[in-house]
Amino acid sequence: MADFTLTFLGTGTSVGVPMIGCDCETCHSTDSRDRRCRSSIWLQTPEASWVVDTGPDFRYQCLRAGVRHLDAAVFTHGHMDHVTGFDELRRFTVPLEASMPIHATPATLAVLERMFEYAFNGENRYPGYLKPKAMPVTGPFHLGETRLTPLPVQHGKVETVGYLMERGGRKLCAYIPDCKTPSEETRQLVAGVDTLVIDALRRTPHTTHMNFDEALAFSEEVRAQRTWFTHLQCEILHARDDTTLPAGVRLAYDGLKLTW
Amino acid sequence: MADFTLTFLGTGTSVGVPMIGCDCETCHSTDSRDRRCRSSIWLQTPEASWVVDTGPDFRYQCLRAGVRHLDAAVFTHGHMDHVTGFDELRRFTVPLEASMPIHATPATLAVLERMFEYAFNGENRYPGYLKPKAMPVTGPFHLGETRLTPLPVQHGKVETVGYLMERGGRKLCAYIPDCKTPSEETRQLVAGVDTLVIDALRRTPHTTHMNFDEALAFSEEVRAQRTWFTHLQCEILHARDDTTLPAGVRLAYDGLKLTW
Repeated sequence: MADFTLTFLGTGTSVGVPMIGCDCETCHSTDSRDRRCRSSIWLQTPEASWVVDTGPDFRYQCLRAGVRHLDAAVFTHGHMDHVTGFDELRRFTVPLEASMPIHATPATLAVLERMFEYAFNGENRYPGYLKPKAMPVTGPFHLGETRLTPLPVQHGKVETVGYLMERGGRKLCAYIPDCKTPSEETRQLVAGVDTLVIDALRRTPHTTHMNFDEALAFSEEVRAQRTWFTHLQCEILHARDDTTLPAGVRLAYDGLKLTW
Repeated sequence: MADFTLTFLGTGTSVGVPMIGCDCETCHSTDSRDRRCRSSIWLQTPEASWVVDTGPDFRYQCLRAGVRHLDAAVFTHGHMDHVTGFDELRRFTVPLEASMPIHATPATLAVLERMFEYAFNGENRYPGYLKPKAMPVTGPFHLGETRLTPLPVQHGKVETVGYLMERGGRKLCAYIPDCKTPSEETRQLVAGVDTLVIDALRRTPHTTHMNFDEALAFSEEVRAQRTWFTHLQCEILHARDDTTLPAGVRLAYDGLKLTW
């Protein structure tokens, strides 16, 4: 087994690809790489297994990728496409008295606590209910031997965090799925990373997401060895657009595995 | 086109079938009737199209069934497996200035307003955000020419509602997906219904859902012409268990269409 495996559970935007009611070329594509669930990744190491974000497609994503065990769930922010699958975590707390560590910033924990009030209110009236254990993210923390450092970025008016994941002092991967403007702190933390996974919604500009040009500029600035674009809209057709990117930069797709 | 078409978008329990991490016969079945999304139905009439409940699988269910237009969404109660797909309704409010009528009891509207606060708070900061229009259910109401009457039932400690749907004075269908004990009012309202769709979780007893025996007794009591069991757990294997039911009673499955 590799020391560190990243599986893309989803690489799509807030409404996914195909979009309900959309008749564009991508939404009718038969290329499986154009079928994008909401953005999420699954990390496996010899000591621990966790996901980053649990969007609306989370159960389907787990069945498809064969996720059967999780030690924790980590969150980037509280938007719907990253949290509404939260309740599905209950299947990873068998035996049913187990709790699930939830790593998120205080602002994101507040969203989860409001949305999933039944899980946090301490009543736990039924054995099958999810019992989350809130773990506020205020700085670096460890899951097994992996060090996770929050990466603050602006996503429109909202501050979200990506995560830098390091093992043995090596900056293996920075995962930043929802970002318009990285903070100065984040630019410095990500500098020299092996693999950057970055929000690159589409070619045309957007008010709250990076487009291809912005994501490419950030990748060059931090000198990432490899860059994968994620959170892709249906404006992007995989077979056509993947070939237009510079060396070392590719479009991610659901099911793609990266190993270190 | 039929006057009234009911499509089962989902016939499963709160965790769906297959369940994450379950190795039972049903969860490994290749029979498509054993793959159950969370319970939801889609109704089509010449005048209007609506869904009852928007659970976690709602986007996938809409893509699979070809739901491209909705005039309203109706809710039975505020449990996670019936509401977490609420945000996906945004794709049915194109052009983006349109709002979506949300019919639910005041208690269920309160759950939706807490969970999806961004949609109800009046700010609507982005054009693509869902703009729900709360329509409190306190008695019968109409969607086009169909009359919907809420059917109060006890679901453990929670009161949920099913819906009786009538056209031209005919009791076409009663849909009651989460029920342990029907109220006396509901027993009278449902009496003589053409088609009963009723919670029948499994054969063994459960504290908050009817089992097969309870659902059969209710079907006989109200003299339903036809009965379909829904909200089915993985204890139920379609090909084996569907054949054991009395005449006029069947197991529903995802994709099943009923027409009047």
